[in-house]
Amino acid sequence: MKDKPLILVTNDDGITAPGLRALIEVMNELGDVFVVAPDSPQSGMGHAITANSTIYCNDITIDDGPQLEYASSGTPVDCVKLAVNEILNRKPDICISGINHGSNSSINVIYSGTMSAAVEAGIEGIPAIGFSLLDYDWEANFDAAKKYVKQITKKVIKHGLPEGVVLNVNIPKLKEKDIKGIRVCRQAKAYWQEDFDKRTSPQGKQYYWLSGKFVNRDKGEDTDEWALANGYVSLVPVMFDLTAHHAIQKLNSLGFNEK
Amino acid sequence: MKDKPLILVTNDDGITAPGLRALIEVMNELGDVFVVAPDSPQSGMGHAITANSTIYCNDITIDDGPQLEYASSGTPVDCVKLAVNEILNRKPDICISGINHGSNSSINVIYSGTMSAAVEAGIEGIPAIGFSLLDYDWEANFDAAKKYVKQITKKVIKHGLPEGVVLNVNIPKLKEKDIKGIRVCRQAKAYWQEDFDKRTSPQGKQYYWLSGKFVNRDKGEDTDEWALANGYVSLVPVMFDLTAHHAIQKLNSLGFNEK
Repeated sequence: MKDKPLILVTNDDGITAPGLRALIEVMNELGDVFVVAPDSPQSGMGHAITANSTIYCNDITIDDGPQLEYASSGTPVDCVKLAVNEILNRKPDICISGINHGSNSSINVIYSGTMSAAVEAGIEGIPAIGFSLLDYDWEANFDAAKKYVKQITKKVIKHGLPEGVVLNVNIPKLKEKDIKGIRVCRQAKAYWQEDFDKRTSPQGKQYYWLSGKFVNRDKGEDTDEWALANGYVSLVPVMFDLTAHHAIQKLNSLGFNEK
Repeated sequence: MKDKPLILVTNDDGITAPGLRALIEVMNELGDVFVVAPDSPQSGMGHAITANSTIYCNDITIDDGPQLEYASSGTPVDCVKLAVNEILNRKPDICISGINHGSNSSINVIYSGTMSAAVEAGIEGIPAIGFSLLDYDWEANFDAAKKYVKQITKKVIKHGLPEGVVLNVNIPKLKEKDIKGIRVCRQAKAYWQEDFDKRTSPQGKQYYWLSGKFVNRDKGEDTDEWALANGYVSLVPVMFDLTAHHAIQKLNSLGFNEK
C-alpha cells in the first residue's frame, strides 16, 4: 500500500446524488479520490454493460474538493471498467460504491447497480465495498452513515478482503446514537412479490409500471434483514463465483447423460 | 406435475432470434409453451429491471406453432416478472431461457440477460435453465444444441432442481457427433480484460466502444471452460444467495466494531 491509497468512487444514483457527494467527502479524508460515475440515475441496472451502443465519459467539476471526477453515459459496471482499463494510470487500491439512496440488502444485491459496480471491481481484483442507506429520500441525512463508511473503509484499506469477496454494507435509517454497531451477516432469503400497475396511455396503448412488495420469510438472526431491523449496520460478504458447489454431487447423481 | 407442464420461455436476444425460435420448437414437444421475450436485443443487460420507465407487453404471432407469445419492451428479468405475476394464470412448472447466441460460461453468467432471466425465475421458486450456444452468428446451426436442450429439460421436468439453484448450460459449437456428452462443472475463475476503442464523433465529441478479451487463468478440469474446450456440454449449478459464507468467520475476526 502506498502512503495515500488511490480510491475509485462510483454509484448508481448518478454523479450529482447527495449520497455520492457524502461518500466523496469521507474518501477525501482517506486517500486520493477518483470518481467515475453515471451522468444520470442507473438504479436497478444490475450487472448491465453497454455492449451495443457508444459510451461517453468526460471530466467534470462539481465542487471545489481535491477529487478528480468523470461523468459517463454508461452503467455503473461500465464506469468501473472505464476507470480501471482506460482512464486511471494504475490499479486503484480500493473501490467504493454508493452511498445508495435506499436498501440493497437481501436479494436486492442482485438488482443493484451500486453493488454490481463493487462486484465488477472485485472481478478485476480490487477490494471493493458497496454502501447503502435505508432511506430513498434524495434529501436523506447521511451523517450517521458517514461514520460507518469511514470506519469500515479504513479497516478494509488496512487488512484487505478475502479473495473473490466484496462487501455489501447497509445502514439503517437511524440517528447515530441509536445504531448499535456492525454485524457480519448472510443475505436473507427473500424476494419481491410483483404487483404491476397496468395503465392505458392517452393513445389507448396499454403499459405497465413495475411495483411490488418485499417478502422476507427468513427469520434467521444471522441475516442482514434481522440486523437492520434491530438497529445494526449489516455487512454481507458477497461473491461472484455463483457456482452452487453443494449441488454438484446431487446433479451428478441425476445422470444427465442418460437419455 | 400436471400431465403437460406449463413452460415459460424467454431470452435476451429478442423474440425473433433464431435461438429462441429453435428453443420454442423443442419446448412445444414437451409441454404448453408460453413465451414472454424482449421485443429487441437485450444482451449484456445482466439482472437489470425497468424501475424508472414504463414497460410495454403485447401478444404477438410470429409463426403457426401452438405456443402463445408476448413481446415486451422490458429487460429479460422484466419479462419473467411480467409473465409470472401479471400474464400467466398459474405458476409455470419450468422456465427456459435462450438459446443464447454466444457463450455464457464462466464470469459471463454475471453479465448475461439470458442467465438473469433464469435466475429471476429461480428467485420466484420456479425450476429454471439458461441455454447458450458458443456461436454468436445470427445464422448459427442449433441442431446439435436442440438435442441437449431437450435431454436436459426433460430431466429437470422429471426430477426438479435443488432449492435455490438454477442451471447454466453452454453448448460447444460442434457437430452433434463430435459432442462428447454433458459435464456438471463449476464456473471457471476468469474475467474480461477490457480494451476500450476510443473514437471521435463527426461533431468532435469523444466516445468509447466497450471491447475486450476473455482471460481464463483457471486450469481446473472441473470447470465449464475446460469442458467446453474439450467437446462437452457444460452444466453449472448457479445460486442467487451470493453470501460468501466461508468469509464470515474471517471478517468477524477483523473486528469491524473497533475504531
